[in-house]
Amino acid sequence: MDTLIQPRILKGFRDYLPDAEIQRALLVEKLTQVFRSYGFVPIDTPVLEYSEILLRKSDGETEKQVFRFEDNGRRDVAMRFDLTVPFARFVAEHKDELYLPFKRYHIAKVWRGEKPQAGRYREFMQCDFDMVGSDSASADFEILSLMKSALASLDVTDITIRMSHRGMFNVFLEKIGLKNKSEDILRTVDKLAKIGKEEVSALLTDIASDQAKASSILRFIEGASTFEETLTIMEELSSAHEEAKRLRTIRSMMCASGIDKTFVLDPSITRGLDYYTGIVYETFLNELPSIGSVCSGGRYDNLAGLYMKETISGVGSSIGLDRLIAGLEQLGKIKTRGSFLDVEIFCLDEELSVEYQALAETLRSSGIAAEVFPEAKKMNQQYVVAEKKGISFGILMKKEDAEKKVFTLKNLATREVFEGITVEKAASIIFASKKE
Amino acid sequence: MDTLIQPRILKGFRDYLPDAEIQRALLVEKLTQVFRSYGFVPIDTPVLEYSEILLRKSDGETEKQVFRFEDNGRRDVAMRFDLTVPFARFVAEHKDELYLPFKRYHIAKVWRGEKPQAGRYREFMQCDFDMVGSDSASADFEILSLMKSALASLDVTDITIRMSHRGMFNVFLEKIGLKNKSEDILRTVDKLAKIGKEEVSALLTDIASDQAKASSILRFIEGASTFEETLTIMEELSSAHEEAKRLRTIRSMMCASGIDKTFVLDPSITRGLDYYTGIVYETFLNELPSIGSVCSGGRYDNLAGLYMKETISGVGSSIGLDRLIAGLEQLGKIKTRGSFLDVEIFCLDEELSVEYQALAETLRSSGIAAEVFPEAKKMNQQYVVAEKKGISFGILMKKEDAEKKVFTLKNLATREVFEGITVEKAASIIFASKKE
Repeated sequence: MDTLIQPRILKGFRDYLPDAEIQRALLVEKLTQVFRSYGFVPIDTPVLEYSEILLRKSDGETEKQVFRFEDNGRRDVAMRFDLTVPFARFVAEHKDELYLPFKRYHIAKVWRGEKPQAGRYREFMQCDFDMVGSDSASADFEILSLMKSALASLDVTDITIRMSHRGMFNVFLEKIGLKNKSEDILRTVDKLAKIGKEEVSALLTDIASDQAKASSILRFIEGASTFEETLTIMEELSSAHEEAKRLRTIRSMMCASGIDKTFVLDPSITRGLDYYTGIVYETFLNELPSIGSVCSGGRYDNLAGLYMKETISGVGSSIGLDRLIAGLEQLGKIKTRGSFLDVEIFCLDEELSVEYQALAETLRSSGIAAEVFPEAKKMNQQYVVAEKKGISFGILMKKEDAEKKVFTLKNLATREVFEGITVEKAASIIFASKKE
Repeated sequence: MDTLIQPRILKGFRDYLPDAEIQRALLVEKLTQVFRSYGFVPIDTPVLEYSEILLRKSDGETEKQVFRFEDNGRRDVAMRFDLTVPFARFVAEHKDELYLPFKRYHIAKVWRGEKPQAGRYREFMQCDFDMVGSDSASADFEILSLMKSALASLDVTDITIRMSHRGMFNVFLEKIGLKNKSEDILRTVDKLAKIGKEEVSALLTDIASDQAKASSILRFIEGASTFEETLTIMEELSSAHEEAKRLRTIRSMMCASGIDKTFVLDPSITRGLDYYTGIVYETFLNELPSIGSVCSGGRYDNLAGLYMKETISGVGSSIGLDRLIAGLEQLGKIKTRGSFLDVEIFCLDEELSVEYQALAETLRSSGIAAEVFPEAKKMNQQYVVAEKKGISFGILMKKEDAEKKVFTLKNLATREVFEGITVEKAASIIFASKKE
């Protein structure tokens, strides 16, 4: 006999057992329904692509983390590390087959060889949605509204979406003559929530070498107590009137749609060194802000500029599914189930397996999810399995029942028992209970 | 400016544009519903695993095709090339967390560096479903019934599932003293449909070096005109009474469930060199048998024997999704759609974007999928996009309409026009049309 191989998976990777996978599947199904209701359509791209395509724009950090190798045909290939770069390549490659504005969602795995740590995996799922080909308030608003609706479909309504306008911030820095220092400034501004006003102020003074300019930046990113007041300050300081007008229209849309309370204008949101040029946003769970943003994104100028001459602007967002699931678990908001079954047909007598299977077929054809316990194991064992699967009803059919085409139906939760009933009667009881 | 990178994907890989991806998603959703109604639950495993785990049992052919490399931590890793080996590893690793019998489905991508050719890709989707932990007629039947139901959910009902019993064939070969030649015999028997009876007969005579034995094998694999007659011949020739009894019980289940006409007992089905030990089966589209089996599998003795001492028997099947989709396309059975939208709110006037967005929100909250065309492009252009997306209704709202909170609803297919209606009235018209 061969020696056994120890069954094990790679560090940073995970198996999904049924409970976890059902939970993830239900979540993805709900998100999918919302994406579709907004007119977003799915696409898919290969997991493996030419490294040249995936890594051209990446920084050194990404390059170190990517799973990259030479395939059997000596091609330099890599596993995708996000869904944005493949989308850019996709848009450039298929631009003549797509119609603009083009709205896609993509829920799929990506891989990064990061140091594994709590909540960080080397294989994880991303959920991206973008609209490209329209630089308008309508497009901006649609993404923001979709973010709120997508999370609401998961019963996550106690959220704050903190948004700002990166383009406006850029104009502001230009106006005060600090455009050349924007990298350092962005990095510092990003830390406001973490290190507080005073420290940020000190750092900014260092960077700007000018107390007044540092104060001005601080005044810009601190905002005021309402969306409108904050916007007024931002506009005054930056003179970015076009951008302010865009934000004002978006705000009107929020108010007209009754979703304005979820959104806060927070000019300290800049999305750091990312490639955004318009609105930017991050989403926090009000009961659990510490886990960070669960849905972020923004507007970018030139999605596919690496791969084609035409410029296509877009706006998009990404849900961090793993982080969101972790958050929902902490909040006790995770709903899962052991199976999708309504009925377990217990096996009292293997001689009746033919009748049990025929009964299962009848139940399923009337829309009831049913399975037959395939062997006459001890009843206790059969009940345990039904319980683990979260099944509501059990059917017990003995030989004398089978001859009369009746059986006993048992509500496994309430222990209520219906003896000598027909399949039609059982179906109506089960349906009634499903509607409750 | 950087030089542009030619956007392109690797040979043998594919992008899925919305039409194709929607089609695939709808197919997977339907299959998923059926799996769930039989009590099967989903799992997921990593795309990357230790090569030792994935390749231990593989033949040289698989090893040549697999995407294998050394990761940044110098681990010898490979991308999964099927869903069976990871499932075996999964069962061994998690056996204490699972309850038996355990029924799982797994619909996911796998990778093989095969020579790309028509209909063959290096990245493709598999759809596996297995029940492990019960060696019973009930379990065998459940998989067979599920195969039929799964295909029926895709509107594929004109099928024949050709089945046999590999264990019975093995017993037969042992009885006639040819067990040591079973590899050659299996390879030959497999060719019956392709090269015909005479050639198979000649080859078998060569292998067996015995005319009588060759005739006997031929008689075994040829069968007769009915399930029962064929089974009688198989039993007589093999004396495999246990196996015959199992087949007879399965047949009774088929008859009692009214699905017997789909199944043919065809002893030439052996699934070649695979590891099956019980029933085996292949599924053919009656209108297109030439594309080969679209759903195959069988019972195996020892799923996870490489990874653990316990023996777990199972029965399972795999749908070749790509082949099936290709077949459905040829048969004109593919249903797809450009989007899931019910309504396009056309943009007549960008000044009304706020009203358009509020209207879209109202429609969506009443269960109607709606989007706003984000810019006041030429109407012709807006209509073309709506048509490409397969949208049934358009909404036209002018400034004077908006003030009165009414608009014009247009059925884009029938050109029927409803002027000056409210959102409630529009919703009821759209719902009525969806129900048709």
